Amino acid sequence: MPNDQVRDALRRFADERNWGQFHTPENLAKSISIEAGELLECFQWSSEPDLAHVREELADVFTYCLFLADRLGLDPNEIVLSKLEATRGKYPVEKSRDRSDRYDVL
Amino acid sequence: MPNDQVRDALRRFADERNWGQFHTPENLAKSISIEAGELLECFQWSSEPDLAHVREELADVFTYCLFLADRLGLDPNEIVLSKLEATRGKYPVEKSRDRSDRYDVL
Amino acid sequence: MPNDQVRDALRRFADERNWGQFHTPENLAKSISIEAGELLECFQWSSEPDLAHVREELADVFTYCLFLADRLGLDPNEIVLSKLEATRGKYPVEKSRDRSDRYDVL
Amino acid sequence: MPNDQVRDALRRFADERNWGQFHTPENLAKSISIEAGELLECFQWSSEPDLAHVREELADVFTYCLFLADRLGLDPNEIVLSKLEATRGKYPVEKSRDRSDRYDVL
Repeated sequence: MPNDQVRDALRRFADERNWGQFHTPENLAKSISIEAGELLECFQWSSEPDLAHVREELADVFTYCLFLADRLGLDPNEIVLSKLEATRGKYPVEKSRDRSDRYDVL
Repeated sequence: MPNDQVRDALRRFADERNWGQFHTPENLAKSISIEAGELLECFQWSSEPDLAHVREELADVFTYCLFLADRLGLDPNEIVLSKLEATRGKYPVEKSRDRSDRYDVL
Repeated sequence: MPNDQVRDALRRFADERNWGQFHTPENLAKSISIEAGELLECFQWSSEPDLAHVREELADVFTYCLFLADRLGLDPNEIVLSKLEATRGKYPVEKSRDRSDRYDVL
Repeated sequence: MPNDQVRDALRRFADERNWGQFHTPENLAKSISIEAGELLECFQWSSEPDLAHVREELADVFTYCLFLADRLGLDPNEIVLSKLEATRGKYPVEKSRDRSDRYDVL
């Protein structure tokens, strides 16, 4: 995540436009929040959104996340698995099964 | 994105806790916005954040994006590449090079 | 909104700490998104949140909105009423009654 | 905040359209995040945004905050001042002057 093909396609897209100058980590973090808001807009008044629209907005969130990971030299697969291990420690199965509470109130 | 190992690890993590009941598309979309806000918080007052913190928050955004893609039967690689093609059409190289303007003002 | 008492209390609070240097419009806009995410977190897994928590997080969103309005010389009452007039034009009663659709699909 | 005129105008606007059915606290919290993202978009690639646009987007955030406060029976002035007192306790002037650090690292 991404496979190399996706990462390379995104790099090439930005390079052709010389957009690295705009893709500072801070601008990318803002962009992720902005796109997350557009994704949420699909669910603003209903829990049954238009799937084609969700698909596009989710793609935008992924795209900026991938740009930020690449910019910071982070491997998306690695950071997700590593965070999952930490989360596993905070949410032991026996305590968290069938519960949505935060670890600090479990 | 994810490779199968990551997708399977996330599925197993949620299944062990029986969290599918909480992972509705709407709740996952809210979660993506919430985590995007936590990522942005790393940059609230400075453009030079603590990298270890950014890494964790970015992992959280990715994680909920992956849960949502899996829930909706979407392939992250496929939707990113497909959206990139659409974006390519809106931002031709000759018009968008060195510019951060939106396509509708290019 | 705010009444003068609130605006003056916020100004004094920031001035005593010399925080005007951090309160650039951009940092305040980021702060509003961050706090909006914390407010949304009250509703992450349930539509029945803890009211005391909502109250605090909503206060934080208002606070940064007021800081931004003050920084930009905007009168909150005036901009809300002025935007409401524009929205009224986009959502005529006869078309928008009992509907949550956006104006462009009404 | 709001003065009575603003609160009454917002109530009348929603009542005429029978939009109370959509204005659940959860939907309003989502709406605040969505509008906060649109406000942030004004600052996506630059710290010098178009002021007329900021003004509109900030008005939208205020509007949904006011709807949520009204729905929950909260007085915006009161909750902001009350939260400010709590924040004052966490950020004593002598410790927080000229610093943007969070209270837990001061």
